[in-house]
Amino acid sequence: MFLRKTYCTFKLSVLKGIVFVFGLNYTFKLNESVCCPSLCLADVSATVRGLQSIFQEQEMTENVHDSEGHGYLATFVGKNGRFAILRMHSHGLVTFDLQCLEGDDVAQVDNLLNALEKKLKALLDGNIQRIKRLPALMRGSDVDRYWPTADGRLMEYDIDEAVYEKDSAYQNIKILHSRQFGNMLILNGDVNLAESDLPYTQAIMGSGKEHYAGKEVLILGGGDGGILHEAVKLKPKMITMLVIDGCRKHMRKTCGNVLDNLKGDCYEILVQDCVPVLKKFAEQGRTFDYVINDLTAVPISTAPEEDSTWEFLRLILDLSIRVLRPGGKYFTQGNCVNLTDALSEYEKLLCRLSCKVDFSKEMVCVPSYMELYPF
Amino acid sequence: MFLRKTYCTFKLSVLKGIVFVFGLNYTFKLNESVCCPSLCLADVSATVRGLQSIFQEQEMTENVHDSEGHGYLATFVGKNGRFAILRMHSHGLVTFDLQCLEGDDVAQVDNLLNALEKKLKALLDGNIQRIKRLPALMRGSDVDRYWPTADGRLMEYDIDEAVYEKDSAYQNIKILHSRQFGNMLILNGDVNLAESDLPYTQAIMGSGKEHYAGKEVLILGGGDGGILHEAVKLKPKMITMLVIDGCRKHMRKTCGNVLDNLKGDCYEILVQDCVPVLKKFAEQGRTFDYVINDLTAVPISTAPEEDSTWEFLRLILDLSIRVLRPGGKYFTQGNCVNLTDALSEYEKLLCRLSCKVDFSKEMVCVPSYMELYPF
Repeated sequence: MFLRKTYCTFKLSVLKGIVFVFGLNYTFKLNESVCCPSLCLADVSATVRGLQSIFQEQEMTENVHDSEGHGYLATFVGKNGRFAILRMHSHGLVTFDLQCLEGDDVAQVDNLLNALEKKLKALLDGNIQRIKRLPALMRGSDVDRYWPTADGRLMEYDIDEAVYEKDSAYQNIKILHSRQFGNMLILNGDVNLAESDLPYTQAIMGSGKEHYAGKEVLILGGGDGGILHEAVKLKPKMITMLVIDGCRKHMRKTCGNVLDNLKGDCYEILVQDCVPVLKKFAEQGRTFDYVINDLTAVPISTAPEEDSTWEFLRLILDLSIRVLRPGGKYFTQGNCVNLTDALSEYEKLLCRLSCKVDFSKEMVCVPSYMELYPF
Repeated sequence: MFLRKTYCTFKLSVLKGIVFVFGLNYTFKLNESVCCPSLCLADVSATVRGLQSIFQEQEMTENVHDSEGHGYLATFVGKNGRFAILRMHSHGLVTFDLQCLEGDDVAQVDNLLNALEKKLKALLDGNIQRIKRLPALMRGSDVDRYWPTADGRLMEYDIDEAVYEKDSAYQNIKILHSRQFGNMLILNGDVNLAESDLPYTQAIMGSGKEHYAGKEVLILGGGDGGILHEAVKLKPKMITMLVIDGCRKHMRKTCGNVLDNLKGDCYEILVQDCVPVLKKFAEQGRTFDYVINDLTAVPISTAPEEDSTWEFLRLILDLSIRVLRPGGKYFTQGNCVNLTDALSEYEKLLCRLSCKVDFSKEMVCVPSYMELYPF
């Protein structure tokens, strides 16, 4: 979602009082008995009158808008750039949104919300079915904390530092620091791997049930170095890794020192696009006991705009099967367990391969993903 | 956060077009070069003029508000109850919020946002540092999807059904169904355990490193039945469980059938407040090899309003240690790893116990918590 992002050198202190917008969202839902349209108009008008004193105390100027028949709608401009929106829908939903700038008095803002809640409780005594106050959305902050899940749900991470950002020839690379997950690698806006995510690496290597000793292994992608770092411990004969961007500095808990050199005792890293190399291996008849594809997740949808990703996935799968020894194994990640259409499309694709394959899947909880993933 | 909530019998079809509010949030952040105050006014005025055609096409009526020196602030009322807020802050942040009611034409709404993004990109060509479009916040829905983490971050769960809700004599009990985590038990608004959360149960039982065979075990709380269900498999001599509310129907993946009867081959469930029972056990000199406290998490803060929870925690800890055999073990959960003050307060408390204890902790990823927890 980032466009032409230059490396950001702002510090939070520079932003103080300027571009930080909180949105505090409040929702009141009323009982069915109050939601009956015949009761509504009287209720709304009494409630609005009852709330006016709070906004007057806060020196907020009211503007009532013509909602064209969609309930009561008013906005309030206050001091320090505060702006509020109060809506009362004709079937019993009241929403209140308050925008404040960074540097505003948080205690005062809390007081306003608490006073509003208290007054509404008194005015609608016994008729409130639910009150929900959501955490503030912070916008325009130097450190972006919102990274939705693959199935489009809003997630706020505990990110406290933007560690690194660069547009490589292939993708936008970000490293953000999460208080609990450590450094997180974000590629083109997708959370890829955090230092907490050993379970991801273990899962994509077969969850500890494989015997890598003496075997030949091909890793596609895996630029965070996690798979290579774990694999070398298992004494394979040789690991070949094909990667475009590597991250050797900021994810040391994941990669250890395996990315410091392109060659080690039992591994070689080729910094090349994997497609031509895979084609060359296939032509040469070079084969592997294990192929681990850590390039890209299953596309999030089966919509036409994902066609090229599916095409790439099919190509890689086909080439991987061609360089796999009989009895060899191919490991890859799926995508969020909720993307059922995309996952079943992927399974159909596995059934249509030129060479017959067996496959199995396992659901794994990857800490920083905040959703279950099949591997 | 729920007050006097009656059991909700709304179906989503009844709500259609009525009380469902989307909030689509858009944030544009500009480069430093554009953020310079001297450039701003001209920029803002040109940008506003450039955007007007989009709002006119959408038949939205503009209201410009006096922000009292805090940038450009306009609201737009459209058809179908649509309402938008556009703010341009003087240092380069542009936010756009759009509220729509359920039943609105989603494609049309998307088109509006896309047109706005395209126009802003054209108007601010090359000067946009970041564009961020957040998923819509759904408010007033029958199925509440927002359950913040212990450290107050916004999390949207994939909840698709409200399975059960009741106020017991002690607490508000909700069972909500998550597509990926299964049924989730929510007590007083806190996510307690989901059917996916065997790692929680395993962690609070010592992560598979304990030998329960032939031992006497005391479980405090654990009304979801997870600990009891796992413990009976390990052939202990006797398990005593003290619980106030049990959930035997909706979390079968967690409890199996162990809650169907209050007595089993090697367990007894006492549906009683644990404090008097623990006091009685202590007076009688009754002791256990393992005490597993699954009653309450460490309070989220060390603020005075949490004093009573800390007091309760101290009391339970003290009584538990009194009924623990020499060499026995006490297991409990901590709280979100980010609540460092509360967790270190808890560790201080452990060091001040009348009887000297050793303790260790382990960080665990509980799928439905979406944050790391020490045990």
